[in-house]
Amino acid sequence: MTLTGISIAAPAVIVGVMGGGRATPADEDLAYRLGALIARQGWVLLNGGRNAGIMAASARGAWEQGGLTVGILPDDHRGGCSPHIRIPIVTGMGHGRNAINVLSSDVVVACPGGAGTLSEIALALKAGRPLVLLGWPANPLEGTEAGRRLHRAETPEGAVVRIRELLPASA
Amino acid sequence: MTLTGISIAAPAVIVGVMGGGRATPADEDLAYRLGALIARQGWVLLNGGRNAGIMAASARGAWEQGGLTVGILPDDHRGGCSPHIRIPIVTGMGHGRNAINVLSSDVVVACPGGAGTLSEIALALKAGRPLVLLGWPANPLEGTEAGRRLHRAETPEGAVVRIRELLPASA
Amino acid sequence: MTLTGISIAAPAVIVGVMGGGRATPADEDLAYRLGALIARQGWVLLNGGRNAGIMAASARGAWEQGGLTVGILPDDHRGGCSPHIRIPIVTGMGHGRNAINVLSSDVVVACPGGAGTLSEIALALKAGRPLVLLGWPANPLEGTEAGRRLHRAETPEGAVVRIRELLPASA
Amino acid sequence: MTLTGISIAAPAVIVGVMGGGRATPADEDLAYRLGALIARQGWVLLNGGRNAGIMAASARGAWEQGGLTVGILPDDHRGGCSPHIRIPIVTGMGHGRNAINVLSSDVVVACPGGAGTLSEIALALKAGRPLVLLGWPANPLEGTEAGRRLHRAETPEGAVVRIRELLPASA
Repeated sequence: MTLTGISIAAPAVIVGVMGGGRATPADEDLAYRLGALIARQGWVLLNGGRNAGIMAASARGAWEQGGLTVGILPDDHRGGCSPHIRIPIVTGMGHGRNAINVLSSDVVVACPGGAGTLSEIALALKAGRPLVLLGWPANPLEGTEAGRRLHRAETPEGAVVRIRELLPASA
Repeated sequence: MTLTGISIAAPAVIVGVMGGGRATPADEDLAYRLGALIARQGWVLLNGGRNAGIMAASARGAWEQGGLTVGILPDDHRGGCSPHIRIPIVTGMGHGRNAINVLSSDVVVACPGGAGTLSEIALALKAGRPLVLLGWPANPLEGTEAGRRLHRAETPEGAVVRIRELLPASA
Repeated sequence: MTLTGISIAAPAVIVGVMGGGRATPADEDLAYRLGALIARQGWVLLNGGRNAGIMAASARGAWEQGGLTVGILPDDHRGGCSPHIRIPIVTGMGHGRNAINVLSSDVVVACPGGAGTLSEIALALKAGRPLVLLGWPANPLEGTEAGRRLHRAETPEGAVVRIRELLPASA
Repeated sequence: MTLTGISIAAPAVIVGVMGGGRATPADEDLAYRLGALIARQGWVLLNGGRNAGIMAASARGAWEQGGLTVGILPDDHRGGCSPHIRIPIVTGMGHGRNAINVLSSDVVVACPGGAGTLSEIALALKAGRPLVLLGWPANPLEGTEAGRRLHRAETPEGAVVRIRELLPASA
C-alpha cells in the first residue's frame, strides 16, 4: 500500500464465502480452513454474517488469524450475527441481500448449501462474478449453460490458488 | 368473490412467470400460451417486466386475453418495460428484485432461462413458494436436495393444472 | 385505450399515496376520500399495503369504488396486508421498500405521517417524482431546498387537480 | 478487545456519515475533520461510498488517519467509488441502499445535503438509530414530531462527544 512513502488508496480484496446455514462438521471444517487462508493472504472475508453453518465457521477461521470479516445480514438488526464478524452490514432486505453478497465480492467461493446458496451461485454468475465451488460432490448446475462457468476446487488450499487466478488484475 | 351480494375483499391470485430475457421462439410460444391461460383463469400474471424473451411473451399472452399484468422492473425507471405490462413496479434494485418476483407470487412457473432464472428458482425454493418448471429439457437442479422440491409440466395446460393444485387453499 | 379498434398497450396511471401507519380520524377520512377519487379517475392506487392508518384508509376508499389497489409490503409475507389491496407486492425489504413506493408512482401524494412518510417524501424528491402534500399543517421540509419542490393541496379534490397537472404527458 | 489474554469477539463501532454528493468547501472541510476524528477514536466510518461531496471528504479524513472506511454503493459495480473507501459494499439497490446506510450504523451523523440526505435522516429516525446533525443552519425537520428526536452539534469535536453519549452501552 505504500510506494516510496506515498500511500496508495485502494479497496481491499474481498472474497465472498457462501454456504449453508446448516452444514456438516466436515463442510464447516472446510469453511473454517478457507476463512483462515483468506485472512492469511490479507484478503477481506465477506459472508452472510449469521452465526450458523458455513457463515459462522468461515468467519471464525478468518477472525482467529486476525483477518477482517464483513457480514451482510438479512435482518434489520444485528441479532444472530456471528461473534467473529467485525463489520456487520445490516440490510433489512432478507434474501434480497444475497445479491449484495455476490456483487460486493471480487471472487465468490460457494461451499455446500441449500436453496439460498444456489441462489447466490446463480446471482454471481448473472452478475459476472467469478465463482469457485468448494466441497460439492457434484456441480449443482450440471447440465445448464450457466453451470459451465463454475470453477471447482477440492481443498481450501486449492480454492486459494483458484481465487488468485480469478482476481481482477487490479486487485 | 361475492357471497350473497357482499363483496369479499381479497387479494388476487398472482402467478409469477420467470424465464430468460433471451429465449428460443419455441420457448416464447410456450410462455405466450401460458400467459394467455393464466389470464383466462382470472389470475394476475407477474413477471420481471422487461420487453424481452419470456417476460415479453408471457405478458403479451395475458394482455391479449384482457388479463392483468404486473412487471417487477430492475431499473429505477420504466424504460425497457414490455408494452403489455399494465402495472410496472419500478424497484431500482437490480437483480435484488428477483427476490420480490418470487415472494409476490402464489405459485411460480419457471420457463427456460439462464443464471437469472436459476436465481429465481432457488429464491422461490428458499422462500417456500411452490415452483413449476415448464419446458426445461432436464431439472437444472438435478442432484440437489432443493431440486427435489420442483414440480414439472410439459405443456402450458399442464402447468395450469399444477398451479391449481399448488395454490394455497385460501386463494 | 382504443383507437379505431386497435388496443393500445400502455401502463396504468399509478398514483402513490403515502402516510402514517398511525393517523387521526380526520387524516384517515382525507385518505379515504382521496383513494375514492383516485379510483374514479381510473387511476391505480399504490401504497405501502399495511392494514393501518393512511394505507388502510386510502386502499378502502379506492376499493369501494371498484378501483385497482397495489400494496408494496415491507415484510416477506402477506400478513398484515390491508384487505382492500388487490395486488400485494411482497418485497421482504423492510423500509428499503419505501424507495420502490415512490419509484413506481407517476405522482406521489403524501398525507400526514411520521419518519417513514418523511423518508418517502425525500426519496420521491430525490428520484424526481412529483409530490403533493395533502393535509399537512405545514411543509415538513420548510427551509430546505428540497422542500421548495413540494406541491400542496388542501382537499382530496384539490389533490386530484394537482395530480392531473403533474402527470407526465404520456400518462 | 483482550481481557487477560482472551480475545473477545465483537463488532466494530460503526459511525455513519451522511451528506450531500454536492457540498460547499466549508461543509467538505467539516466532513473531512469529522472523518479524521472518527478514525482516531478507533471507530469505523461508513458512508454512501461515492467519490463526491461529503462522502469523499469524510472517507479521505478517516483514511488519512489510518481508519477503516466502508462505502455502501448504490450501483452494481465499484465505478465512482471514493479511492479512500477500503471496503466497498456493492448493493445495486440505488437509493434503496440509503436504508442500509443507517441500519448498519451505531450512530448516524448527517452533514448538510439535499433530498437524499433527508431520506437518510428520516430512515434513521424510523429505524430508531440515534442521529446527530452537524453543520446544518437549521433543523430540516423543524416542526415535525420526528424532528424533535434529532441531536445537534456545531463542530466535528462536538459531534464526537455526542456520538460517544449516544453509542449503545455494548459498543
